Amino acid sequence: MKSMIVKSAVFGCTLAALFSANQTEARPTRANSGAKYVFFFLGDGMSATQIQATEAWLTTANGGSARNAEDLLNPGNRLNMTKLPIAGMQTTFDAGALMTDSASSATAFSCGIKTLSGVINMDTTKTTGYKSIAQLAHEMGMSVGVLSSVSLDHATPAAYYASVPSRGAMNDICIQLANSGYEFFGGGSMAKGGAGFGTDAWALAATNGYSVVSGRTAILDLINNPQSKVICPNAWLQDSSAMPYHVDFNAPEASNNVTLAEMTEAAIACLESDKDGFFIMVEGGKIDWACHANDAMAAIGDMIDFDNAVGEAIAFYLAHPNDTLIVVTGDHETGGLTIGHATTGYSENYAGLTNQTCSFTYFGANQWTAHKAAYADSYTDTPTNLVSNADMLNLMEECFGLVYADLNDYQKEKLEDAYDKSITGGRSGTNNNSAAENSYLYGSYEPIVVTITHILNERASIGWTSYSHTGVPVPVFAAGFDAYRFAGFYDNTDIAKQIAAAMRYKGTLPVERD
Amino acid sequence: MKSMIVKSAVFGCTLAALFSANQTEARPTRANSGAKYVFFFLGDGMSATQIQATEAWLTTANGGSARNAEDLLNPGNRLNMTKLPIAGMQTTFDAGALMTDSASSATAFSCGIKTLSGVINMDTTKTTGYKSIAQLAHEMGMSVGVLSSVSLDHATPAAYYASVPSRGAMNDICIQLANSGYEFFGGGSMAKGGAGFGTDAWALAATNGYSVVSGRTAILDLINNPQSKVICPNAWLQDSSAMPYHVDFNAPEASNNVTLAEMTEAAIACLESDKDGFFIMVEGGKIDWACHANDAMAAIGDMIDFDNAVGEAIAFYLAHPNDTLIVVTGDHETGGLTIGHATTGYSENYAGLTNQTCSFTYFGANQWTAHKAAYADSYTDTPTNLVSNADMLNLMEECFGLVYADLNDYQKEKLEDAYDKSITGGRSGTNNNSAAENSYLYGSYEPIVVTITHILNERASIGWTSYSHTGVPVPVFAAGFDAYRFAGFYDNTDIAKQIAAAMRYKGTLPVERD
Repeated sequence: MKSMIVKSAVFGCTLAALFSANQTEARPTRANSGAKYVFFFLGDGMSATQIQATEAWLTTANGGSARNAEDLLNPGNRLNMTKLPIAGMQTTFDAGALMTDSASSATAFSCGIKTLSGVINMDTTKTTGYKSIAQLAHEMGMSVGVLSSVSLDHATPAAYYASVPSRGAMNDICIQLANSGYEFFGGGSMAKGGAGFGTDAWALAATNGYSVVSGRTAILDLINNPQSKVICPNAWLQDSSAMPYHVDFNAPEASNNVTLAEMTEAAIACLESDKDGFFIMVEGGKIDWACHANDAMAAIGDMIDFDNAVGEAIAFYLAHPNDTLIVVTGDHETGGLTIGHATTGYSENYAGLTNQTCSFTYFGANQWTAHKAAYADSYTDTPTNLVSNADMLNLMEECFGLVYADLNDYQKEKLEDAYDKSITGGRSGTNNNSAAENSYLYGSYEPIVVTITHILNERASIGWTSYSHTGVPVPVFAAGFDAYRFAGFYDNTDIAKQIAAAMRYKGTLPVERD
Repeated sequence: MKSMIVKSAVFGCTLAALFSANQTEARPTRANSGAKYVFFFLGDGMSATQIQATEAWLTTANGGSARNAEDLLNPGNRLNMTKLPIAGMQTTFDAGALMTDSASSATAFSCGIKTLSGVINMDTTKTTGYKSIAQLAHEMGMSVGVLSSVSLDHATPAAYYASVPSRGAMNDICIQLANSGYEFFGGGSMAKGGAGFGTDAWALAATNGYSVVSGRTAILDLINNPQSKVICPNAWLQDSSAMPYHVDFNAPEASNNVTLAEMTEAAIACLESDKDGFFIMVEGGKIDWACHANDAMAAIGDMIDFDNAVGEAIAFYLAHPNDTLIVVTGDHETGGLTIGHATTGYSENYAGLTNQTCSFTYFGANQWTAHKAAYADSYTDTPTNLVSNADMLNLMEECFGLVYADLNDYQKEKLEDAYDKSITGGRSGTNNNSAAENSYLYGSYEPIVVTITHILNERASIGWTSYSHTGVPVPVFAAGFDAYRFAGFYDNTDIAKQIAAAMRYKGTLPVERD
């Protein structure tokens, strides 16, 4: 991780001063008398614990100590989002669960209604569709950009242009993307946009006037030569048509990549000339994926890329202080991440994370796959005996900084069990756990990989309790025009309503689709 | 838990309306031109997860479903604190650790400085003492009350009247209590106030004019017949001179008890006649102890009692809307509590907690002690075989609602292992875990008791990762005079500074002791 791109602090204490000044100034004369430039940043799976873990890691990676309050409070080690002058919290549950799904939470943010898990911008009966705040902004003449580090037809981005009874109807979602008329899409690609999934949404988009811009050079060129109606999929789509984890940006596959922050910069450039302003939604979607897999460093890397994108919005805000609103939040916590663990007590150990060089996904698809191909056959009948497999021990150390000899007996036992399960399916007999214990230990992940990150994380003083979303209320940060609306403790459905109010939308949410 | 006293909602939406009105009114003429009545509520170990767990439990206990957003949003199922109009978040780390101690966090709240774990109201060199905001309030002529559900010489209450290099110097703390001149102390007793620990602080307090008022009748009589300079220890001191857990209030030992809310009511009555107003600190101290032990229901019970005390302050505020400030926060999270668990995924199960009838402490001191005395000898040499011990299985069901037959294989194995460890010290051989695994599974707690609450909690969709404090930022709630000061994302040391500013203290914190 040493060479991973670390965020730079975009601003210091000027923002708070600007904030109080803004609210008393006269509004510019235009159709939309509210916030002209609206940014909504959504960290999927991001709650207070992901934020604190990232700031503690940044403090450590920047040469400070996460056991030193001065270092932790140093603005150079803080995220952009936690410096915004307004903070609030929102409850995240959906219509049918304390632990929301990303589709129902995205519906809350975009339409202002509670719905069921899996449903996008429709009510709980899945019969009535609602307009998103992005669609309302578009109808008010504003340009719209939708960005995500996961695929553009994934639940969160879809909620800004589509209305479907099931998030699984991805080809239908792609058709609605192609018909949206929005000015900018960027990040991942369309997972199910091709003709093989039903309708060829790429062809439909082309018919509707969209250009596809890909590759680092072409996307960055948009900053100086903006276009309207572009779709910008990142060059390297790592998994499920998503951008790679930020911790994998040093891999050779990433040479033609842009970051989420650079994608945000391109989106701003393409939309800012609209005299009626813009609405831009940016999702850091793989924070969630990393937390599902209980890989703290992959989550922290994507937190930093996401926060760098917030930094781009802040830079824009400082240039347009009277017209810009920035809102940053998460849709739910994922993984039950905690800032402490039974094995470490009151001692933090973020330095233990600084030697992880790639994500669980990259490791699983590359080093682990190669190792398994080379060694699996030799363990058919006898105990797998990880402790004497130099290749695997080297990989653990090289890719994760995890040294087997440093571990306690329980950690060693868990690694041996997981290695057996992964490399032989448990045939060698090292792993004699009940099915219930293995389900608890591995979820649906590759046993050895999730066990490596579990142990690496717990040694770094980070705990996990789940492979799913959890139900804790999450923080909201805001700056700029009408940012005061996002102070307090409220429900996630209030976010859509307050953004609509800040844009001076004349109607009342929710608004049925035509 | 069915008959446990559940909080009643004290107010609806009027508070938010009152808030905005208050800020523009002229201040009354008196020496202290700021907030006349200041309440600081400190939930020890309380973060967003403890709050959400309690609201989900209340929803369930009140007959609703925690899978239904309407029920979860019903004001009758919400805590008083989450209805306050202002919310913020504070970072909790101390001068030497990401996971703060309660002494250093209490110092942050009371003096506005970062210090080391274990230090109360002194700097990191332990040579310079600082005045607490309570002491500053007292010097401004305000009356002061210090309440805690744990002992009055425990770290959090001590930080409002004492200054010591180590929280362990409890007799010294008691002497400073007796010499404080404050008007009200209530909750637990002094753990080390007796002559056997050094100086007889009780005698010193008497010399200094304090009366000791104890027993339910006498304490409640203060509401109609207030006294000044009283110390009110609760009648039943369950552990370490602390009040009992709220979930144990149905026990016969509790017949002469008052709740923390009733103690708060008595404190208000004793102090409200001061023309210069009051500063009252109320700590819910055993939320933390329950979370250390990973007993969710004991924590939820004490959350409710603590929140009922907040309700008393709100009732007072509604009668004195122009002069009152209420601030509610936690000092840190404890236990790594999460609103979800790997074994339950997206399904909450709070109903699983509603049959717990006592705390881990009460069970350990009573039912478990009796069981162990009756059965320990029979398991010296053979496997303990919990599954055929009807008495223990009945106790698990009676006291926790945990039915052995309902559990999965891994949960059964963990119970068998823990039972062996608890009843024979592991001699019977059922528990063949490594020392590292047992340390992870039990911490320093009674193995069978902590395993029962672990399994009960995980089945209720609550996870734990630690037996210690964790480092997540925690929410702050505020209402009333100058409450806007507590909006935003800031550090715990800012709380002391903002309370001092709201009281219109003329100096700058920190203020050295004379």
